[in-house]
Amino acid sequence: MDNASKIYVQGVNHIFTARYYSSNLASNGTKEEKPGQVLKYDSNNENVDGQSGKSAISSYWGVAPPRVTKEDGSPWRWNSFRPWETYKADTSIDVTKHHKPTTFMDKFAYWTVQSLKFPTYLFFQRRHMCHAMLLETVAAVPGMVGGMLLHFKSLRRFEHSGGWIKALLEEAENERMHLMTFLELSQPQWYERALVFAVQGVFANAYFVSYVVSPKLAHRIVGYLEEEAVNSYTEFLIDLEKGIVENRPAPAIAIDYWRLPPESTLKDVVTVIRADEAHHRDLNHFASDIQFEGHELKEYPAPLGYH
Amino acid sequence: MDNASKIYVQGVNHIFTARYYSSNLASNGTKEEKPGQVLKYDSNNENVDGQSGKSAISSYWGVAPPRVTKEDGSPWRWNSFRPWETYKADTSIDVTKHHKPTTFMDKFAYWTVQSLKFPTYLFFQRRHMCHAMLLETVAAVPGMVGGMLLHFKSLRRFEHSGGWIKALLEEAENERMHLMTFLELSQPQWYERALVFAVQGVFANAYFVSYVVSPKLAHRIVGYLEEEAVNSYTEFLIDLEKGIVENRPAPAIAIDYWRLPPESTLKDVVTVIRADEAHHRDLNHFASDIQFEGHELKEYPAPLGYH
Ligand SMILES: [Fe+2]
Ligand SMILES: [Fe+2]
Ligand SMILES: [Fe+2]
Ligand SMILES: [Fe+2]
Repeated sequence: MDNASKIYVQGVNHIFTARYYSSNLASNGTKEEKPGQVLKYDSNNENVDGQSGKSAISSYWGVAPPRVTKEDGSPWRWNSFRPWETYKADTSIDVTKHHKPTTFMDKFAYWTVQSLKFPTYLFFQRRHMCHAMLLETVAAVPGMVGGMLLHFKSLRRFEHSGGWIKALLEEAENERMHLMTFLELSQPQWYERALVFAVQGVFANAYFVSYVVSPKLAHRIVGYLEEEAVNSYTEFLIDLEKGIVENRPAPAIAIDYWRLPPESTLKDVVTVIRADEAHHRDLNHFASDIQFEGHELKEYPAPLGYH
Repeated sequence: MDNASKIYVQGVNHIFTARYYSSNLASNGTKEEKPGQVLKYDSNNENVDGQSGKSAISSYWGVAPPRVTKEDGSPWRWNSFRPWETYKADTSIDVTKHHKPTTFMDKFAYWTVQSLKFPTYLFFQRRHMCHAMLLETVAAVPGMVGGMLLHFKSLRRFEHSGGWIKALLEEAENERMHLMTFLELSQPQWYERALVFAVQGVFANAYFVSYVVSPKLAHRIVGYLEEEAVNSYTEFLIDLEKGIVENRPAPAIAIDYWRLPPESTLKDVVTVIRADEAHHRDLNHFASDIQFEGHELKEYPAPLGYH
């Protein structure tokens, strides 16, 4: 790692700077520290996402976190994502796009999702915020499982992945950011926590097995899940429009992650999240299509940064 | 995603530009394409890491890969990593750094690694290239397993990870790049492939269980594994110095990934890889220390980009 190297991510109107300080202060002894001296690990006091912020432990290891600032010089407030992972969502999506199930496997994937969808809609009805929050805990599973399996496959076969490992991990991360956003607006009840616990255990294992058995089926299922995610966020937007769900200011994490204007509202947030889901839909149906045509994912460069 | 937004990663003397083209050409119909028109998915012909490069499939999904160029305008050759993931290794490391095992758990971790080390050394002896290649297939497992488990924990508990998910996934990715580098220099034999297959199955499961049972033990074990990785790369360097192992030009992938000068050799590559291992050692011992002191990882911002 460079001492004080800079990373610029230039969006439409943002330039961020991250300055990495020497990561081995304690070991080379050329900075203010003497060799072997115990270093204070100074956690970033300004950060708000789950950091105690006050505590500092001594660390022999001298693993200093990078100090990250926004373009205006103010400290970056988040540890769970960095300025160069933020983006402006491309909201010009086709919300009605649908993969017509033709093969048996397509139909199996489609009806699996449909049969999961009805009890969910029945359960949540118009409690969109609650619906969204719980479903995001599930939505973040497939990308992580798929990414892990492709990583292990890449190692085992001594071959490149064509970027697909990262593309799937990015999807998982993006879904987790959706969850963190809703979490700022609504706190889960104890029975919701229990439900998520149970559902995650079942779904993660089921998805793992299905990805091992047939990645093209697994991606198709996710494609259909994402079609439904788009639909359910469309309903959320309709009820926001009608005033059935109260529109509120967008949480700070969403404004930073999607580079939204400061006066943005929940409606804007749901709009960009829906755009993300549409991109996940396209990516997963595409991944399935590649394999349905008899190719391997690695033959096609992965659409990295495709949110 | 921005249309044609730019990402600059500025190191000591590199500026790369990645230009993302509109990702929904087929769906919004405002570019050259008409709505619903089938898009050619044009894979990047110049890329060399496992892409067929010639084939193009039609995709209804219009998932176009970003076109990435180097600062001199020449196309970026790799799909498995992008310019903004490259870095200059900080090679001012302390190769002798060691966590003295004091607690029972430390000693258990230490002797586990020692008992794994001796048969390995006996088996490979001076076949460093072969040793390195096979060990990298194992080294890339813990970061992925740990990252996945922290991701699931973050979802289940509705809480931020403090960046540790990403830090561990970055480690896994970094190890996989080590493997891809050695792969350019030496091809695995069929029995080596079989060995990796078996070892990965056992190790991934064992590490999964140990991370579920005790993350601090798991990180301590990795800390000790990385200490041994540093030692074994030091021996590799000594034999390169002595001429027992032939020094050769660095592979292109290594020159791009670690931003090495074009005339670099295998010795330079092993030096930067050893530096990476030292950083993994520090990060994992640090992660273990945090938990030994009764804290949770998320209380400390993760050292992202710490290679
Ligand atoms: Fe989502
Ligand atoms: Fe999604
Ligand atoms: Fe390694
Ligand atoms: Fe390592």
